[in-house]
Amino acid sequence: MLVIMDARASDEDIQRVENRIRELGYTPHPIPGATRLAIGVTGNKGIEDRIYLEGLPAVLQVIPVTKPYKLASREIKPENSVVSVGNAKFGNGNLVMIAGPCAVENRDQTLRIAELVASKGAHMLRGGAYKPRTSPYTFQGLGEPGLEILAEARERTGLRVVTEVVDPGLASLVAQYADMLQIGTRNMQNFELLKEVGKLGKPVLMKRGMSATLDETLMSAEYIMSHGSHDVVICERGVRTFASHARNTLDVSIIPALKQVSHLPIIVDPSHASGNRTSVIPLALAGVGAGADGLLVDVHDDPAHALVDGPQALLPDDFSQLMHLLARISAALDRSFNLFSTEATEET
Amino acid sequence: MLVIMDARASDEDIQRVENRIRELGYTPHPIPGATRLAIGVTGNKGIEDRIYLEGLPAVLQVIPVTKPYKLASREIKPENSVVSVGNAKFGNGNLVMIAGPCAVENRDQTLRIAELVASKGAHMLRGGAYKPRTSPYTFQGLGEPGLEILAEARERTGLRVVTEVVDPGLASLVAQYADMLQIGTRNMQNFELLKEVGKLGKPVLMKRGMSATLDETLMSAEYIMSHGSHDVVICERGVRTFASHARNTLDVSIIPALKQVSHLPIIVDPSHASGNRTSVIPLALAGVGAGADGLLVDVHDDPAHALVDGPQALLPDDFSQLMHLLARISAALDRSFNLFSTEATEET
Amino acid sequence: MLVIMDARASDEDIQRVENRIRELGYTPHPIPGATRLAIGVTGNKGIEDRIYLEGLPAVLQVIPVTKPYKLASREIKPENSVVSVGNAKFGNGNLVMIAGPCAVENRDQTLRIAELVASKGAHMLRGGAYKPRTSPYTFQGLGEPGLEILAEARERTGLRVVTEVVDPGLASLVAQYADMLQIGTRNMQNFELLKEVGKLGKPVLMKRGMSATLDETLMSAEYIMSHGSHDVVICERGVRTFASHARNTLDVSIIPALKQVSHLPIIVDPSHASGNRTSVIPLALAGVGAGADGLLVDVHDDPAHALVDGPQALLPDDFSQLMHLLARISAALDRSFNLFSTEATEET
Amino acid sequence: MLVIMDARASDEDIQRVENRIRELGYTPHPIPGATRLAIGVTGNKGIEDRIYLEGLPAVLQVIPVTKPYKLASREIKPENSVVSVGNAKFGNGNLVMIAGPCAVENRDQTLRIAELVASKGAHMLRGGAYKPRTSPYTFQGLGEPGLEILAEARERTGLRVVTEVVDPGLASLVAQYADMLQIGTRNMQNFELLKEVGKLGKPVLMKRGMSATLDETLMSAEYIMSHGSHDVVICERGVRTFASHARNTLDVSIIPALKQVSHLPIIVDPSHASGNRTSVIPLALAGVGAGADGLLVDVHDDPAHALVDGPQALLPDDFSQLMHLLARISAALDRSFNLFSTEATEET
Repeated sequence: MLVIMDARASDEDIQRVENRIRELGYTPHPIPGATRLAIGVTGNKGIEDRIYLEGLPAVLQVIPVTKPYKLASREIKPENSVVSVGNAKFGNGNLVMIAGPCAVENRDQTLRIAELVASKGAHMLRGGAYKPRTSPYTFQGLGEPGLEILAEARERTGLRVVTEVVDPGLASLVAQYADMLQIGTRNMQNFELLKEVGKLGKPVLMKRGMSATLDETLMSAEYIMSHGSHDVVICERGVRTFASHARNTLDVSIIPALKQVSHLPIIVDPSHASGNRTSVIPLALAGVGAGADGLLVDVHDDPAHALVDGPQALLPDDFSQLMHLLARISAALDRSFNLFSTEATEET
Repeated sequence: MLVIMDARASDEDIQRVENRIRELGYTPHPIPGATRLAIGVTGNKGIEDRIYLEGLPAVLQVIPVTKPYKLASREIKPENSVVSVGNAKFGNGNLVMIAGPCAVENRDQTLRIAELVASKGAHMLRGGAYKPRTSPYTFQGLGEPGLEILAEARERTGLRVVTEVVDPGLASLVAQYADMLQIGTRNMQNFELLKEVGKLGKPVLMKRGMSATLDETLMSAEYIMSHGSHDVVICERGVRTFASHARNTLDVSIIPALKQVSHLPIIVDPSHASGNRTSVIPLALAGVGAGADGLLVDVHDDPAHALVDGPQALLPDDFSQLMHLLARISAALDRSFNLFSTEATEET
Repeated sequence: MLVIMDARASDEDIQRVENRIRELGYTPHPIPGATRLAIGVTGNKGIEDRIYLEGLPAVLQVIPVTKPYKLASREIKPENSVVSVGNAKFGNGNLVMIAGPCAVENRDQTLRIAELVASKGAHMLRGGAYKPRTSPYTFQGLGEPGLEILAEARERTGLRVVTEVVDPGLASLVAQYADMLQIGTRNMQNFELLKEVGKLGKPVLMKRGMSATLDETLMSAEYIMSHGSHDVVICERGVRTFASHARNTLDVSIIPALKQVSHLPIIVDPSHASGNRTSVIPLALAGVGAGADGLLVDVHDDPAHALVDGPQALLPDDFSQLMHLLARISAALDRSFNLFSTEATEET
Repeated sequence: MLVIMDARASDEDIQRVENRIRELGYTPHPIPGATRLAIGVTGNKGIEDRIYLEGLPAVLQVIPVTKPYKLASREIKPENSVVSVGNAKFGNGNLVMIAGPCAVENRDQTLRIAELVASKGAHMLRGGAYKPRTSPYTFQGLGEPGLEILAEARERTGLRVVTEVVDPGLASLVAQYADMLQIGTRNMQNFELLKEVGKLGKPVLMKRGMSATLDETLMSAEYIMSHGSHDVVICERGVRTFASHARNTLDVSIIPALKQVSHLPIIVDPSHASGNRTSVIPLALAGVGAGADGLLVDVHDDPAHALVDGPQALLPDDFSQLMHLLARISAALDRSFNLFSTEATEET
């Protein structure tokens, strides 16, 4: 921690700050500058520690030096984490494709789309049984019957399933059906939910909040990790900015920045970022170019009648084209992108 | 709803859109323009209704005309709602002051500060027993013992209590102790929590999300209202922007904008907006200037040892100064700002 | 300057950074921490100085401690600057009202509105002769004939005139007519313009850029000051955020933050911030509550036929109401707000 | 244009709006809805046209339907524009690499780096002779001697030169030396500069403003085009958001969005977007994935002594690696990326 003093600080002001630092059990290290004094503080007892110094006279700024996350930090664990969900491996250099409908609408729709994405090489199935919707008057998901449909789709296709948890009280129910638990954007700082999900010990796909900083994103991962599950995959899905040409602004720059400071894998959701089918493939390729470990993509074979987010779902042919491009780009970037197969499933 | 067609749309494209509109049971109204066609759509069957037209060829944009909220809208209820919590009345033209510590740290601290703010004229007491914290390693609140302390503070001072709910499973417990339930910023789109809190029928103080639009804010209020509680007060507490000179950017412009479209009261939290004691009074007065129905302010008599957000808490003398200025400004703006008194309490 | 080393930095890494610091003529001050090392750097030779250290191995972050502005800083000049334009004094505790049409449209319109705002107590007249417009196809201002009209309005009303400069080549021409030169939002970082305007030595009203930080705003003021004019008044006029309920988001929090670090006056433009007449008075009062030294307000008596920004202009009666409220609020806040008078003009 | 009426609008309110529309020479088309009326307005006389209706009673919102740009619109010109600068072709499906130092620091440095990037296959040379700097105390560029150095570098390497213009008064001077004129981010809405540069008729590289919307970006291109130069290339270089893990947030989503509505080419500047060498290659590949027509990259062989933006410059080996990856990715995406050669130069 570094305390920056006002240029006009008196000796008494400086003394007061140094005394306070010592009173709290730390050591002050004055660093005289041309125009002002900075005081380094050492002896931090732990990550929880926050010293109250801002309010003292002539203190201009207090700059924390240590990052607030620990388990998620690359300083604690220098090598990349690899999160396995069946055959899908996030973080070992290859590319994982999670695809499926935004919402589980009914048995037929979900099985049909699951088989479609499996046949084209997806590695995992997505689909929401509990949908957090902006409006209380719109479709909120099928609930447990939706989870049963997802389980049946897994049986049929071999695709492992990721689905969202929206209520701490239902986390263990969802975990009975799902292979990976999803935390949605709007719940990234629903800390009670993070704690419950963390306790279940299953792999977690955590979407970045709509205006979450990198540090806040890693702190939410830290909640999950410190409660039990170390298998956390982050998902960038666009952030909120002034720009209105896309539903959200896909922030590809967080990918290299996160990899610099954390060992956790990160994937991209180009569907929710764009909100618009025609931008999904460009944004998917942008995510891969920036170094994402995988993609999460909405696919629907009848988007005109989709109950949720139809306009952003890829059609079957779009999805084929995307898979084809990903295979070629992965080769160009020396990354592996093995299309899923029944044999592979049996090995699991 | 208005559908904007591409300037190069063919007759066939237009026919396809009109047919689709009719197929869905609506009526298309073509509006020819100099360079392009717009198609008005009438016959909306209800607020839930969303027509999938974006994906059709040559459709440039679909503009919703009807607002998605209903119960929160001034069109449904033209006159201001007045939310009563004991003597405190939000929305009838006067100014309500809610003050207290950010967190309930212990019995002595809370009773001491409650008596302090009561003696200076506050109308309600704030204080968190459950604290949503960015880091899993920091103080998370006292839980139920904290609620008991708040109840004791109410007994002693006559101040009604508002405190935060963070878990749907604990909502009814908190409601046993609190007079008004608070939804925090990070939970504004935790829809399961909104539903539970709505069902309890108590007054709710709902903080605007960190990057919530006006429509999203009112839709979250709509969740609470449609589940049972119509007594919702919105709280502006700063939004996330590029600016770093304050912890958040207090958005005073939402106050007149919200009052234009909604009948709900809105108050301002200058403490969390600024994160910094020296800006709290200027931002409080800005909120009142913009037309807020009240204020939510952190007060602490020993911020150096506060467990949460010490740097933003007003000291007792600051709080006195603020109360004094508010009384003068209220008079200047012909608003009432009656300082609380024991007599008033007894009338309740 | 403070250099934060990676927790895994080797002795060699640290040695390399220290050597580089010494090679550049500075002194390194290692501050050992529990998990990592920070290195203080002293001996900055001047404000221009930037040391390249980011690129060295194991350097995590370089944190500048000294602020980049000098002339605009309160550390150099602790007392408030007072900028005088005729009788109008910005920064001495009173409130200055600048009012008038957004654009000079013709002689009659400008003289009529100037007389109107003068009669109601405005202290200065605003009006653009050169208009920076988003579209090349809209009215770009009358140019020099517009300046002549403004000069005539000053003759008739005694109101000093502020008007915008958009081209370095025309700065001296505008200065022949205007009492105060305005730099528009879109030109806040048009450094060639800032230099030219600074050289003229006249008072300058500089609008904050649409997404300018506090430091960038003060650096642009520094450009003007370092080229000759020390009489700079900053104008907050709303910044760009995700929020769409107002044209811009008025950032009142910059007022106390700026006053903390700079001695320059700051005023608020509620008209351009809101874009909407009904929000202008609430935002004006918010600005005053937050501590602004004055206001810049669009007034028009026939906004339906205004060539620029009609929807945001106050009508004559609105303006009277605002002036009345300002007089009352100024009294409540113990600030002076002397309505202008012919006598006062003669003293100038 | 569409006028949305308040649900509580009276017949008189509606009549007033319709009359006003007719008075202005347009035709109103009432579209009755379940809860409110919308009024379509047809007969727009041209792009300049803006009807004042917002201020009338019971008017809730006025929604423009026609886009404000014309020359830049794909509706006017459906096929992609191809902008040629020597052999470099922007917009015909291939990828153009512009590389070089951020600033021309001296003859030796610029010639050395120009030869380096030419030898590795760059198509054009970048380098600033006039530098818009946030601080008045930092290096502002060499001015005309810098332009002479760039011209000499072109002679030696065959690389065409793009360099920035910061002052309308110097535009024609810069045009004597440069093959393409650059408008910097901070000057995207310096309309006087856009007009002057447009008049010169040379190809223009226009950087998107720090918080410019897509429409504003295209309107600035429209300024240049309507004054004479139709050869405009847009450059996305990151926008300002709350995120602090990169200097700016590279907005890849603008690439498909712009291509949807405009025929102009768009390239990406990953160097200024990231501000940090380690993120430049990931962001460059992201830009290409999203469909950019080229890249603008800072390269320096001695960034530790660069006068401007050293930390973001690619080292020679980094640049080789980027060129290698681009060749592979272009092939994967079926785009051409022909490395420049001396022979090719002679053909020009």
